[in-house]
Amino acid sequence: MTELGDYLATYAGKRVLITGGLGFIGSNLARRLVDLGARVTLVDSLIPDYGGNLFNIVGYEERLRVNIADVRDPYSMRALVRGQDLLFSLAGQVSHLDSMQDPFTDLEINARSSLSILEACRHENPDIKVVYAGTRQQYGKPRYLPLDEEHLQLPTDVNGVNKLAGEWYHMVYYNAYGLRTASLRLTNTYGPRQLLKHNRQGFIGWFVRLAVEGREIQLYGDGQQKRDLCFVDDVVDAFLRVGASDTANGEVYNLGGQAPITLLELAHLLVEIAGQGRVGLIPWPEERKRIDIGDVYSSYARIQAALGWQPLTPLDVGLAQMIDYYRQYHQHYW
Amino acid sequence: MTELGDYLATYAGKRVLITGGLGFIGSNLARRLVDLGARVTLVDSLIPDYGGNLFNIVGYEERLRVNIADVRDPYSMRALVRGQDLLFSLAGQVSHLDSMQDPFTDLEINARSSLSILEACRHENPDIKVVYAGTRQQYGKPRYLPLDEEHLQLPTDVNGVNKLAGEWYHMVYYNAYGLRTASLRLTNTYGPRQLLKHNRQGFIGWFVRLAVEGREIQLYGDGQQKRDLCFVDDVVDAFLRVGASDTANGEVYNLGGQAPITLLELAHLLVEIAGQGRVGLIPWPEERKRIDIGDVYSSYARIQAALGWQPLTPLDVGLAQMIDYYRQYHQHYW
Repeated sequence: MTELGDYLATYAGKRVLITGGLGFIGSNLARRLVDLGARVTLVDSLIPDYGGNLFNIVGYEERLRVNIADVRDPYSMRALVRGQDLLFSLAGQVSHLDSMQDPFTDLEINARSSLSILEACRHENPDIKVVYAGTRQQYGKPRYLPLDEEHLQLPTDVNGVNKLAGEWYHMVYYNAYGLRTASLRLTNTYGPRQLLKHNRQGFIGWFVRLAVEGREIQLYGDGQQKRDLCFVDDVVDAFLRVGASDTANGEVYNLGGQAPITLLELAHLLVEIAGQGRVGLIPWPEERKRIDIGDVYSSYARIQAALGWQPLTPLDVGLAQMIDYYRQYHQHYW
Repeated sequence: MTELGDYLATYAGKRVLITGGLGFIGSNLARRLVDLGARVTLVDSLIPDYGGNLFNIVGYEERLRVNIADVRDPYSMRALVRGQDLLFSLAGQVSHLDSMQDPFTDLEINARSSLSILEACRHENPDIKVVYAGTRQQYGKPRYLPLDEEHLQLPTDVNGVNKLAGEWYHMVYYNAYGLRTASLRLTNTYGPRQLLKHNRQGFIGWFVRLAVEGREIQLYGDGQQKRDLCFVDDVVDAFLRVGASDTANGEVYNLGGQAPITLLELAHLLVEIAGQGRVGLIPWPEERKRIDIGDVYSSYARIQAALGWQPLTPLDVGLAQMIDYYRQYHQHYW
């Protein structure tokens, strides 16, 4: 047991706000928090194609509160942070491609809203704990692997810049005002309740959908790019540990997967688990090649040392669970 | 001679846009460019207390064009970048204290406007060269000295975060679209035409004013914090080298001073050069102590190796020139 002690027990009765709470990670976190006895409010604006989905909380509708609002609305956020013990800040525009098409919307949602929420917390609820979802995209093209938190941040797309800014407002508000903030830099998260409607939010969800539909998983180039994947239950556990720990205040931690895997290996594994689909190789589309960053995977040594976190779910187990989920519920996702 | 060759000669006949062109560095750069035969347009909105001052271009009014506009206005900027060969992006909110009081204005001016100007360039004038003014404030509290470009960016105030974001949009637009961008991370710049009206834009201008007025220069704590100072003519030379060099595209360079100096030494030097004033020590005000970063000075080795730049003006020579300027023209500055 770490200094955290029984961190799960600390959530009983806690008032918790989750922005992006109807989305992939937000809804998985919400369900877990409700099970732990927390009083959970979800904030989500259900922007089409972003990932928010009322089906994600099916079975939990009566045990939590859903507040439809946009994190870009500072007045709503000021009202919503009042009286909360914790805020998990998961609302975001997460498509790198969309951030290049419409950089201003990405800036508003990922950067400006962070600042606005932090101002709301500072003025309305200075004792709140805020946990932000950053991304390994902030590092850009790796200079060395695995990426650790000492790696320079050299983002290669507008989304990476705005997530970086969003994260660092949190660090500034910790340093300047003592607001208890922390950030997790997520790697490729996968699991039930992920958006699978389109392919603009990363490869993993889309590959799973293709496997479930028995279609061809197309890889760019030779498919030898390595990635790490982290199952959503493990990501939720990381948020719970950081939320419960004052050691984490003012800190940034990478999450990571158990071991890097090539996209080709992943695609074959998915086809094997699904028992259907196939794998094909196609040339790089120019607009994706431009912002591609080669192999990328992260070290989670810092959060392991500080909070005892590690990714526990074997990849084949997590993928099987995800495939089962979408076989059963795909009509709610595409 | 570096690969740059006669970089000054390349500016003859060039169409150059300078945002923040009525400000401290912008106006010094503008005067130099006019002398080199460039066709210069200044963009400035003359926001009170920001540093824009029509007196800064006295004697040059007929040899350049002044366009009053705000960089936050995307329509004006789209029109203004058309037909330009170079853009020096110097408009900015530069007060760290103001960025904490009003973080959204800082975000709009330093981050969002950068993105908006880059979008304007990409669509209206993709061959333009864009040189951005970053700041050593992006590094935050130094982990080692001197700061080089490999130092992590750990900004300690909102201004540092927004300048960081503003800079990295430039890097993204280079990587993704081939837009020829570069950034200089400025240290403490000093010299004629600097804002001396208030003390919220850094210590150096304010100290000079106190010396010129024969007042007491008050230092926080023991005055042993080290800083580096760079004379504005040297900073202008760095912008001219970067603007003329394709080697600099996609690059970030620190500027730096000749040697670090303690604030106490600097204050005594100013009193000595001015022949008046005095030095006093006072306790740290809490709101400044919170965002203070201790000793800080930068290495300029990278730009020296790449473009042959180094700070040439001895501190006592630069300060004497600055003091003479304000003795003569103070009525236009405070």
